[in-house]
Amino acid sequence: MSEDARLDLGRRGRLGMVEAVWGEHKSVEQIAAVMLEMRRAGELALVTRVSAEKAAAVERQLADPIGAPGAEDEPVHHPLARCLTWPAPPPADPALGRVAVLGGGSSDLTVASEARLALACHGVASDLVLDVGVAGLHRLLGQLEGLRQARVLIACAGMEGALPTVLAGLLPQPVIGVPVAVGYGVSAGGQAALMGMLASCAPGLTVVNIDNGYGAAMAALRILQLGRAG
Amino acid sequence: MSEDARLDLGRRGRLGMVEAVWGEHKSVEQIAAVMLEMRRAGELALVTRVSAEKAAAVERQLADPIGAPGAEDEPVHHPLARCLTWPAPPPADPALGRVAVLGGGSSDLTVASEARLALACHGVASDLVLDVGVAGLHRLLGQLEGLRQARVLIACAGMEGALPTVLAGLLPQPVIGVPVAVGYGVSAGGQAALMGMLASCAPGLTVVNIDNGYGAAMAALRILQLGRAG
Amino acid sequence: MSEDARLDLGRRGRLGMVEAVWGEHKSVEQIAAVMLEMRRAGELALVTRVSAEKAAAVERQLADPIGAPGAEDEPVHHPLARCLTWPAPPPADPALGRVAVLGGGSSDLTVASEARLALACHGVASDLVLDVGVAGLHRLLGQLEGLRQARVLIACAGMEGALPTVLAGLLPQPVIGVPVAVGYGVSAGGQAALMGMLASCAPGLTVVNIDNGYGAAMAALRILQLGRAG
Amino acid sequence: MSEDARLDLGRRGRLGMVEAVWGEHKSVEQIAAVMLEMRRAGELALVTRVSAEKAAAVERQLADPIGAPGAEDEPVHHPLARCLTWPAPPPADPALGRVAVLGGGSSDLTVASEARLALACHGVASDLVLDVGVAGLHRLLGQLEGLRQARVLIACAGMEGALPTVLAGLLPQPVIGVPVAVGYGVSAGGQAALMGMLASCAPGLTVVNIDNGYGAAMAALRILQLGRAG
Amino acid sequence: MSEDARLDLGRRGRLGMVEAVWGEHKSVEQIAAVMLEMRRAGELALVTRVSAEKAAAVERQLADPIGAPGAEDEPVHHPLARCLTWPAPPPADPALGRVAVLGGGSSDLTVASEARLALACHGVASDLVLDVGVAGLHRLLGQLEGLRQARVLIACAGMEGALPTVLAGLLPQPVIGVPVAVGYGVSAGGQAALMGMLASCAPGLTVVNIDNGYGAAMAALRILQLGRAG
Amino acid sequence: MSEDARLDLGRRGRLGMVEAVWGEHKSVEQIAAVMLEMRRAGELALVTRVSAEKAAAVERQLADPIGAPGAEDEPVHHPLARCLTWPAPPPADPALGRVAVLGGGSSDLTVASEARLALACHGVASDLVLDVGVAGLHRLLGQLEGLRQARVLIACAGMEGALPTVLAGLLPQPVIGVPVAVGYGVSAGGQAALMGMLASCAPGLTVVNIDNGYGAAMAALRILQLGRAG
Amino acid sequence: MSEDARLDLGRRGRLGMVEAVWGEHKSVEQIAAVMLEMRRAGELALVTRVSAEKAAAVERQLADPIGAPGAEDEPVHHPLARCLTWPAPPPADPALGRVAVLGGGSSDLTVASEARLALACHGVASDLVLDVGVAGLHRLLGQLEGLRQARVLIACAGMEGALPTVLAGLLPQPVIGVPVAVGYGVSAGGQAALMGMLASCAPGLTVVNIDNGYGAAMAALRILQLGRAG
Amino acid sequence: MSEDARLDLGRRGRLGMVEAVWGEHKSVEQIAAVMLEMRRAGELALVTRVSAEKAAAVERQLADPIGAPGAEDEPVHHPLARCLTWPAPPPADPALGRVAVLGGGSSDLTVASEARLALACHGVASDLVLDVGVAGLHRLLGQLEGLRQARVLIACAGMEGALPTVLAGLLPQPVIGVPVAVGYGVSAGGQAALMGMLASCAPGLTVVNIDNGYGAAMAALRILQLGRAG
Repeated sequence: MSEDARLDLGRRGRLGMVEAVWGEHKSVEQIAAVMLEMRRAGELALVTRVSAEKAAAVERQLADPIGAPGAEDEPVHHPLARCLTWPAPPPADPALGRVAVLGGGSSDLTVASEARLALACHGVASDLVLDVGVAGLHRLLGQLEGLRQARVLIACAGMEGALPTVLAGLLPQPVIGVPVAVGYGVSAGGQAALMGMLASCAPGLTVVNIDNGYGAAMAALRILQLGRAG
Repeated sequence: MSEDARLDLGRRGRLGMVEAVWGEHKSVEQIAAVMLEMRRAGELALVTRVSAEKAAAVERQLADPIGAPGAEDEPVHHPLARCLTWPAPPPADPALGRVAVLGGGSSDLTVASEARLALACHGVASDLVLDVGVAGLHRLLGQLEGLRQARVLIACAGMEGALPTVLAGLLPQPVIGVPVAVGYGVSAGGQAALMGMLASCAPGLTVVNIDNGYGAAMAALRILQLGRAG
Repeated sequence: MSEDARLDLGRRGRLGMVEAVWGEHKSVEQIAAVMLEMRRAGELALVTRVSAEKAAAVERQLADPIGAPGAEDEPVHHPLARCLTWPAPPPADPALGRVAVLGGGSSDLTVASEARLALACHGVASDLVLDVGVAGLHRLLGQLEGLRQARVLIACAGMEGALPTVLAGLLPQPVIGVPVAVGYGVSAGGQAALMGMLASCAPGLTVVNIDNGYGAAMAALRILQLGRAG
Repeated sequence: MSEDARLDLGRRGRLGMVEAVWGEHKSVEQIAAVMLEMRRAGELALVTRVSAEKAAAVERQLADPIGAPGAEDEPVHHPLARCLTWPAPPPADPALGRVAVLGGGSSDLTVASEARLALACHGVASDLVLDVGVAGLHRLLGQLEGLRQARVLIACAGMEGALPTVLAGLLPQPVIGVPVAVGYGVSAGGQAALMGMLASCAPGLTVVNIDNGYGAAMAALRILQLGRAG
Repeated sequence: MSEDARLDLGRRGRLGMVEAVWGEHKSVEQIAAVMLEMRRAGELALVTRVSAEKAAAVERQLADPIGAPGAEDEPVHHPLARCLTWPAPPPADPALGRVAVLGGGSSDLTVASEARLALACHGVASDLVLDVGVAGLHRLLGQLEGLRQARVLIACAGMEGALPTVLAGLLPQPVIGVPVAVGYGVSAGGQAALMGMLASCAPGLTVVNIDNGYGAAMAALRILQLGRAG
Repeated sequence: MSEDARLDLGRRGRLGMVEAVWGEHKSVEQIAAVMLEMRRAGELALVTRVSAEKAAAVERQLADPIGAPGAEDEPVHHPLARCLTWPAPPPADPALGRVAVLGGGSSDLTVASEARLALACHGVASDLVLDVGVAGLHRLLGQLEGLRQARVLIACAGMEGALPTVLAGLLPQPVIGVPVAVGYGVSAGGQAALMGMLASCAPGLTVVNIDNGYGAAMAALRILQLGRAG
Repeated sequence: MSEDARLDLGRRGRLGMVEAVWGEHKSVEQIAAVMLEMRRAGELALVTRVSAEKAAAVERQLADPIGAPGAEDEPVHHPLARCLTWPAPPPADPALGRVAVLGGGSSDLTVASEARLALACHGVASDLVLDVGVAGLHRLLGQLEGLRQARVLIACAGMEGALPTVLAGLLPQPVIGVPVAVGYGVSAGGQAALMGMLASCAPGLTVVNIDNGYGAAMAALRILQLGRAG
Repeated sequence: MSEDARLDLGRRGRLGMVEAVWGEHKSVEQIAAVMLEMRRAGELALVTRVSAEKAAAVERQLADPIGAPGAEDEPVHHPLARCLTWPAPPPADPALGRVAVLGGGSSDLTVASEARLALACHGVASDLVLDVGVAGLHRLLGQLEGLRQARVLIACAGMEGALPTVLAGLLPQPVIGVPVAVGYGVSAGGQAALMGMLASCAPGLTVVNIDNGYGAAMAALRILQLGRAG
């Protein structure tokens, strides 16, 4: 692969993470090549921001080269998360504990799903809790007991992004806010949600980039791996 | 008064409001002149953004020209609200109903006080409810019953500005959000709070400019006057 | 509905409002499902930001499941307002009073229509007054007497957004400004109009997010409900 | 003057303008040196953004070197305009016509005065019209006839900056908008006024930088010189 | 036309200008209706921001209703300026003088053409001078003598927008800068050019909104009409 | 304490944290009152953003009311961290593990010290590692082995803010980035550092508000408490 | 070519550079005309931002007019660099030395390729080094020795843009940073990378506009020509 | 020096540069300590952003510890450049060639002086050319021949920042633009100048952070060292 992408295959050893490939600006050929290289190196490939159409083209491109793989060995597209994985994620490791992934509305589903899939790729089980926005507090308050079971909370929110603030005021676990690029006017692009989470008056809330479900998952993984190491 | 400020003394007839004078960029001489003119026209003068030092200088300047006014006839500086009034605000008119002015923290006190004083200048009684921020929801939830008695809610908040969103999700009255220029980093200058309130997922929340306690009070007054007119 | 949107069906009891569904980022399937659920719960469904094409697809999806509904029982798409409703909005309740919805130009028609439809869904009658921008003041001044009859004024404006400022300087009612994302250069996206309304020197003008016709309607409804309650 | 400011003394021949010196970031010594150089070259010196204290120091510095100048030959500080001139501006040239300089409030007085002084330095007479903001339209409408006599209108406005828009919709002359850095929150620094003027729906309104009274005056001068040349 | 656009047909009498219709956000039907109304009122219709496709659809829509108009009576689309006019612009009035419209590169051609067409609609002749950007000063310096003949200079520039600054430092006429939304990175959307023109150190340069060729033309017209009136 | 700050004394039970008081916008009287109330309630008071002068005034104010407290019972001002505490922080709890607090330069010392003090108030020991910026990578690489001992890494950085990115690419623990408001031009106010950390290509880096050392400490505490709970 | 683009054919003599034509906003006809004119003037034509489709159309347009050119005389489209050249670039001039063009990921390939092609058009050889981002420092450190051979380093980076900072801290040559418009959220459009490079704590790093590979190449050329001249 | 600044004394060997210390946010004690450490290590200390008052305090602090240094061995404050150096800069090395440092006005003098001093600290001679702004092009054109002798051009400019663009269009050498934080309104803080330089249409212009005279000097040094090495 002269003059081409060199994969960071040492990342699992160094950080305990696989390197996700950001698929948005990559061509079908680039994605297929990098997935194949990872597959051959025995590493799980996770490609984010891949539409269904692009995924189908990648899968066609990858159909031939691997001799006769069984059905379990084909790349899988996860439409809600807009991601490709190959091979299937490993079974969840109960020793790592569970993560709760919350969203303010169904518009946050894509980002929440990307976070959950990225966790699954590292053997972490997660629970999805949707429609717990702050404009209808009673729905959130009704979920508090369940949320206490999670080791880490990932809260995805667009609009004004107040959900992680309210959560971090009620619960003692690590809370990671993910601003979501949903909304219009001042909330377009997730900017208002990002600022709201950073400006939050709830102590100890941390934030990742807008729509960065993968990043939130990796932050949670760093925390969960601590527990296992200890 | 050639080449000088012409006061909008017809505003009370047209809008039911006195014209507040924004004192921040005005000199002591300018403030004293405009207060004197209003006083002579029989109108209540309300000057906002006046520090204690500036107010004292204005009062000295105004001490002489009015013959021998009684104590009730001297300009009064309201330190919390940073405003001057002359003469004293009228008694509250119970027919207008009460307004609740809420703040997320004691840092919001200045803005909340400006709103309350502006209401008082128009005969509107108000109640102050502080420290009901969203990072400690239980304090807010404990106040809900009392808040139901208010005809209008004015919610002042800095940082991420989520208080009016939570209020507007719980209560049916008009809610006016006032972003407060308190905080640091992304919340410096009130920008994050403003964006959060505008982006709010709570239906029917309206917003005024950062730190505009006077404006929120006048918006409430427009609503209360409807009730009286009807 | 595991892992799915939970509707806030209690909102009417709590706030006197139906929950509008923001349709822009939702799929045809998601919109159809939520409309059906609301319809079955006996609640009026209002879905905003739905193009004619998307609406037709939703209607096709919904054609089957409800046995044999009469013509009055089919979802209706309102093309000017870009909204779906199901069933038809109720008749207007004269006790609530009328709202005037103003626009600076025909480009503001979409936002104004969304506001009017949202009012209609709650039994509020409204009047549309277009082309009363501040660059041709005589057209606005000619409408002043008619505007005095409205209980609340909703002023939609793009470009420099000065219409609500001029209105709030002339009339005593509550004025709600809605910045409209029309224009180019510095007014693109409605940013200049938003800033202009927030910075307004007219007392008591309040503002909602850019293009948020629904939000302005709900703010008006909160005010009108006060009158009825009293 | 090695390694020092070289004045553009040819500007009057090339553009019909004297070069104004921007005094804000210059030391007392730098201002005195440049004024002296201009004075010796027989050119009128106009230094903007000079506080009363700085002006006094400059005047002390300049007291000695010019032998025994008569009273008419000392630099003059114009406190409202925050400018120094030396020698006195020439008498007004009636052939150039008059300029109207308008302001929304007394807070715009500094910028309006800078514009008027810069005009005077070039022999242009001007009239000041204050307190004609758009939140009190009747005051502006009452001045329309007088304004028709001006050849150019310079409209200074802070807050939402709607004054030039309204003017340009009512009158046919050239209108130059000057955003003023007065206000708070979104209007702090003049940003909202600048955006409002640029986004204006009134045809043919042009704009200069925030607080740039001098620039507006020079733009008017370019127009007035056309008339004289023709 | 109930609930519809009311044209400002009095604008010619009040301001000496026809009202341009901004076509970008209007439907084919809306554009056709407004053009027909203006045509019937005997007024020249100028619609800006109309693509060739949209224009063709408007022309088809308008083909029928006007009986049998001659060829000179059909709407004309000006592809470089992206505008529709109906009827043809009047002949140029030599008493108004000529305007020079300059552009830094062929990418500025659309905006420059809109300005020239808007001038032509008001009987003003203009000359186009392209490719005189500041990175190749010799090309600009070679045009100076010709430019001295213009009464007003309209300078369109994207990228860093320095052309109007250089012009206003060399020539005494009124210079109107039009930032152009061409470029990438920090110059995308015309923002860098706008800021550069506003921040200009050349005295008396005025600016209009990004891409606002029509506005620059109307500003020039206001100036030229002064000359005629005098 | 009518109409006054109600402390969230239940926060320790709910979240395992004491409520820090943000001292910047509070008066000496307000700070003294809240510290006294917390002290009487048996809670550790931590007040951030307090200058040495303000702290001395608070200490004078608090000298009298507490009878005759011993030396260990007086409020202590921590000049590097600009904080007041009362009483002294508890001894470190080794079961919680250590945190490494890194800074790119001595300009980051204030923020790093606030983080360390906030950790100390909750019994967490920390190590300070300064001058490990990315422009001199060898200094950072030399510290890697020591950094592996920390359970959580808090990386404070101004300018371009690349330190946490480099750290998170080399080490597997949770990394919390704190942008620091140091620098000039585009890095003034910490904006460039904030954007750089959010945009980071290193997986699992999370971020708090600019200068929010306290917030980073509380985020670390949430993580460390997990370990203890497990 | 009346009223049309005048090429700056003197640029090679003045600056030692050919003028690149920015193709993004130009039509096929405009691009073909300018290429033909340059070709006829004996100058190498380099057109940037041209898609494969647009390039094919340009090539069709240019197929006829040049009689019967040999294969080496046809315009060539470089898909990675999205550029057209005509004729082929000259052979590399070893006396100029080599440039290293680095990218953080394969998403930076387009910008890096534009820079390399622009260098090649001026006879400068370059080496491409991809996937040396700062989140995997070992890959960068492994390349240091090779990089010492380059006379100039051009570092393209999106996301947080830290690559040029790290390079400039390790190597003594001129380093030119090119922010790349790749990423999402705060890094969308290249803004975070631009700010990061400008804010860099590494001494002597310079920056060009986002995605401006051509500009970085010309900056390198200016440096390399110095060496040759000396 | 436990827990304190570790100087990068290897920088001269690695990069050929001394490490400048940014003095703005450092205390007198911190500056004195770092200067003393560098002096003892035999390295030239250059501290930027030091006011005359702060410098005097540092000098007092440093007066004692160095036994009895001769006059040439005391720290020197350079008031125009606002920097401290210790010991005196070395004599200029003619083999490195000269740099021209240009400024648009005397307001750019501080930044230009910082650049010149930083060059001098590395043995590079420079020439200062002031008042060559683009609004008076003739002054710049008159200097062109002299500028051809410089190996590198550093152009400092505030306001619209067009100077480096014009230079880079006329001269073939490397041009480094330094935006200067001088001006008001949109040019306040140097933002307009920065954007103008980045957006420049002149090929091969590179830019450093606002006011970063030191950075521009180091970029020039990297270029000059190439020549020496070759």
